[in-house]
Amino acid sequence: MSDDLEIAGASLRSRLFLGTGGIASPSVLAACLAASATDLVTVAIRRVGPDSPGSILEVVRDHGARILPNTAGCHTAREAVLTARLAREALGTDWVKLEVVADDDTLLPDVVELLDAAETLVRDGFTVLPYTNADLVTARRLADLGCATVMPLGAPIGSGLGITDPRAIAAICDAVDVPVVLDAGIGTASDAALAMELGCDAVLAATAITRAEDPVRMATAVASAVRAGRDAKLAGRIPRRESALASSPTEGLVGTG
Amino acid sequence: MSDDLEIAGASLRSRLFLGTGGIASPSVLAACLAASATDLVTVAIRRVGPDSPGSILEVVRDHGARILPNTAGCHTAREAVLTARLAREALGTDWVKLEVVADDDTLLPDVVELLDAAETLVRDGFTVLPYTNADLVTARRLADLGCATVMPLGAPIGSGLGITDPRAIAAICDAVDVPVVLDAGIGTASDAALAMELGCDAVLAATAITRAEDPVRMATAVASAVRAGRDAKLAGRIPRRESALASSPTEGLVGTG
Amino acid sequence: MSDDLEIAGASLRSRLFLGTGGIASPSVLAACLAASATDLVTVAIRRVGPDSPGSILEVVRDHGARILPNTAGCHTAREAVLTARLAREALGTDWVKLEVVADDDTLLPDVVELLDAAETLVRDGFTVLPYTNADLVTARRLADLGCATVMPLGAPIGSGLGITDPRAIAAICDAVDVPVVLDAGIGTASDAALAMELGCDAVLAATAITRAEDPVRMATAVASAVRAGRDAKLAGRIPRRESALASSPTEGLVGTG
Amino acid sequence: MSDDLEIAGASLRSRLFLGTGGIASPSVLAACLAASATDLVTVAIRRVGPDSPGSILEVVRDHGARILPNTAGCHTAREAVLTARLAREALGTDWVKLEVVADDDTLLPDVVELLDAAETLVRDGFTVLPYTNADLVTARRLADLGCATVMPLGAPIGSGLGITDPRAIAAICDAVDVPVVLDAGIGTASDAALAMELGCDAVLAATAITRAEDPVRMATAVASAVRAGRDAKLAGRIPRRESALASSPTEGLVGTG
Repeated sequence: MSDDLEIAGASLRSRLFLGTGGIASPSVLAACLAASATDLVTVAIRRVGPDSPGSILEVVRDHGARILPNTAGCHTAREAVLTARLAREALGTDWVKLEVVADDDTLLPDVVELLDAAETLVRDGFTVLPYTNADLVTARRLADLGCATVMPLGAPIGSGLGITDPRAIAAICDAVDVPVVLDAGIGTASDAALAMELGCDAVLAATAITRAEDPVRMATAVASAVRAGRDAKLAGRIPRRESALASSPTEGLVGTG
Repeated sequence: MSDDLEIAGASLRSRLFLGTGGIASPSVLAACLAASATDLVTVAIRRVGPDSPGSILEVVRDHGARILPNTAGCHTAREAVLTARLAREALGTDWVKLEVVADDDTLLPDVVELLDAAETLVRDGFTVLPYTNADLVTARRLADLGCATVMPLGAPIGSGLGITDPRAIAAICDAVDVPVVLDAGIGTASDAALAMELGCDAVLAATAITRAEDPVRMATAVASAVRAGRDAKLAGRIPRRESALASSPTEGLVGTG
Repeated sequence: MSDDLEIAGASLRSRLFLGTGGIASPSVLAACLAASATDLVTVAIRRVGPDSPGSILEVVRDHGARILPNTAGCHTAREAVLTARLAREALGTDWVKLEVVADDDTLLPDVVELLDAAETLVRDGFTVLPYTNADLVTARRLADLGCATVMPLGAPIGSGLGITDPRAIAAICDAVDVPVVLDAGIGTASDAALAMELGCDAVLAATAITRAEDPVRMATAVASAVRAGRDAKLAGRIPRRESALASSPTEGLVGTG
Repeated sequence: MSDDLEIAGASLRSRLFLGTGGIASPSVLAACLAASATDLVTVAIRRVGPDSPGSILEVVRDHGARILPNTAGCHTAREAVLTARLAREALGTDWVKLEVVADDDTLLPDVVELLDAAETLVRDGFTVLPYTNADLVTARRLADLGCATVMPLGAPIGSGLGITDPRAIAAICDAVDVPVVLDAGIGTASDAALAMELGCDAVLAATAITRAEDPVRMATAVASAVRAGRDAKLAGRIPRRESALASSPTEGLVGTG
C-alpha cells in the first residue's frame, strides 16, 4: 500500500525534503540526493543563477526531484512576493517555499509579513509552502489562507538543536488539515524521527546534511530516520509509563514450565 | 565496508537485539524477526520450555538468529548463576544476558548482586552481557570483570520513556572498551536512533515492539532507526549552536547572480 | 539598594503579579495577597462587577495592590479594545493586560489581532501589557508599538507545564528593552525561579496559586521563588560543564595539611 | 508549626547545607553563612587543618552551624573509613559525609566501596550521610545499612547541570524512609527549588554558591529557593495538563455580570 505524501495534487514518495544551502559542491549534492532518495529539493532563488552550467539546479533536475524555490533572505512581504514571481518566471514552477525573516541574526519568520505574502501569493496562483514558527494559531491562519502545507521550525535555522518544543509541533499537527513539514532545527537523525512521530508529514533537512562531516552518510541517516519515524507513528507506540512493567513474565522455571 | 558488531568473537550484522517478552504469538514473532532482520534474540529462560513445539525458540532458530537466554526474574546472584547454568545446559550456549533485579516493582538492577553474579559467571566461562543501570562506574567494573558488553538502561523496563539521562549513557560509551548496548526504556524509533547517536553499539528493544499496536511495523521502524542513528554517529553531526546560522547565503539576486 | 521594577513610570517592589482566576473566595484571595506581597493583581474585566460588595476588587484595593484589568475572553482586536475601554471607565486605570486569544480550547494568543489591538490601545493612551506567545519577533513588534511590557507565555494557560522552550524566553529577554513578564504556564515554584533566571523581569502566576491544594502556602512559595530567581540571575551563576569539577581540593591530609 | 528537618535526632531549621570547597576567603564564607542561614556546613577533612586560626572551621563555628566533615578525595572504603576516624578525633563529631569516588575525573561514587565503608562506619557508631548516585536500589541499601540520610547526586560534582534525571530523584524520595539530601549538580536557584519539589528533604550546594560571581547573593538566592521548593511541595501543586485550562471564566460582561 502506498504511503505517498500528497501536496497540492503532487505525489511524493519520499518524506524527506532537502535544502541545498551549505553544500560543498554539485557532486556532493548529487551523492546526497542519491543517498536520500528525496523527491523535493529547495534552492534559494536569490543565490542560484538558473542557467549556470553544472549548477545546483542541473544536479537536482538530473536526480529527477522537484525543485522548490525559496525566498530566503527576504525581509518583507513585498520582497518575498517579487522573489517568488522571479522564481516562477525563471524556473517554470508555481511552487514556492515562502520565507520572510525578521532579521539576519535570528532568521525567525516575521509572521505579519509572512501572512501578508502568503495571502498575495495564494491569490496569485502559487502553491505556497510557508516557513513559519511553532505557533498553532499562525499555522492555522496559513492553512486557512490556502497554503499547501505549513512548515514550522523545530529550532532556529542552522542551530541543530532539534525540536525545542515538541508539544507545540504536535499541537500544530493536530490542528491543521494540510501537511505539516518540520523545517529548520534538525541536527541529526533522531530529530527527524521525532518530528515524524509527533505527527509531521515530512521533514526538511539542510545544514544537518550539507554541513555534516560526511554529508552523504548523513543523508542516508536522515532518510532512514524519516522512514523510521513515519513507521513508528503508524505502528502505534506503547504508552509512556512512570513505573516499570515486566516484559518477561517470570512464572515457571526451565524444566518445570 | 562491513560495519558488523563484534561481541566475544561473534559477528552480528544487525545492531538491533530483540526481546520476546510480551509477544502475542509465535507467528507475530516470526514476522517481527523478519521485519527487523535481527541477529540476536533474548528469551527469558525461566519462561520458555526449550522443547515445546511451535515455541519461541523454534521461531528464533528458524529465523537464524542467535538465542541469548536471560535471567529475568532473578533477585540474587545465586539465583541468576543457577538460571544461567540451566540455560547453558538446555540451550547449548554459554552466552547469557545477566539480569539481577532488586524487586519486581522497579525491575532495577541490584548492582551488588549483579557484580557478584557477573564475576562468578565470567570465571565459569560464560559470555556475560549484563543489564545494568546508567552508572559509569558500575559499567566500568563490569567491563573490568570480563563481561562481553555492558547493557545500561535508558529508563525503567517497559516504561517507554526513552533515555532519561542521555549524558549518562554517552559517558558510559566513552568510558568502557566493550560494546555498549542500550537496554530498557526504548518506547519508539527516535529513542533507538538517539541511543546510537550517543555512542551505543547496539540497542535492545522488547516491549516497544512486542506491545506496539502493530508490532511488525514497529520492528521495521526501530530497525531503520538503529541504522539511522548508527549512520548519523559515523557521519559526524553538526555542532549545536545557540543562535541561528543562515544555510542559504543571500548575496546576489536571480538575474544578477 | 532598591531593585524595584519600573513599568510605565510606576515602581513595583514585588516582581510577582497575581491572577485571580480560579480563586476559591475573597478571603482566600486576601490571604494569598498577604502571603505573596504582590503589588499588581490582574482581574478579568468581563467577569467581575466592579462594585459588587466583598468582591475581588475590594480585596485587592484593601491589600493596596494596583489593579490590572485584563481582556480575557476576547477573540478579536475590536472586542479587546472595547473591553479595555469599559475597564478604563469602570476602574479608573489606563493600564490593561491585553489578551486576544484565538479560541477557547488552546487559549493561545492570536498575534494578528493582538498587534492590531495593541496599536489601537497605545494610540488611545493606554498602558498596554500584552499577553503573547514565546516568539521574539512578535515581542519586538509589541515593544516597538509602545507596549509597556511584553508578557510571553511559558506554556498554555492553566497547563502547569512550566516553560516548555526556555531558549525562546531567554531570547525575548535579550531582544526587547521593555520589561518581560512570564505569563501563563507556571505550575510551581521552580518554574517561577527559572523564568527569572532566564532574564524575565517579573512573573505572573494565577492557576498555580489559586488552584493549588493550599493556595496561601503556594503564594508564599512562588513569591520566594521569584526572589530566588531574581537574586540568582543577578548573582551570576556558574557555567554549566559537561564534566565534573572537584569542589574540594584534595591535596594534604589532616595532620599534614 | 515547625518544619525542622530531623537527622539522627538533631533538628535543623534550614534545609540548605553548604559546601565550602572553592570559597574565596573566610570572610566571604562568613557572609555566605549569614546570607543562607544554614545550620550544616560540610568541610573536606583532608584539606583543612582543624586548628589553623581564621580557618574555615572557625568561621563555621562562629556562625553556629554544625560541622559535617566529608571524606572528599577518598577512593576506597579503607581510605574513607580512616579519614572519617581522623575527622572524629580532630573535630569531635561522629557525623560524616561519606564520599568514596571512583576516580578524580568523574568524581562519581563507587557504590561498591561506598556500601562497604558505610557498613563499617555505621557499625563503628558514626552518623553516616553518604554521597551516592541517583540509583534507588543503592539508596535503599544505604538506608537499610543504617545511614542517617542518603545524598544522591543531581549531576556530576561541579557541573552545574542541575538534576539531569528528575524521575530518578523522585523515585528515591518515594523509596527510602530516611531524609534525602540532593547533593551535587546544583547550578542555580531553580535547581534547588526543583529538588525540594521532587521530594528531597534538603539540598547541599557548594560550587553553585562559592564560585558564583557574587557568592553572597547566590547564597541568598539558593536559600530562598530551598524554602520556595519546600513550600511548593507542601502546598500541593496543580496537575500538569497537556492542554489549556481557562483561569478566567468569561461569562458575563462588565455591567451585566
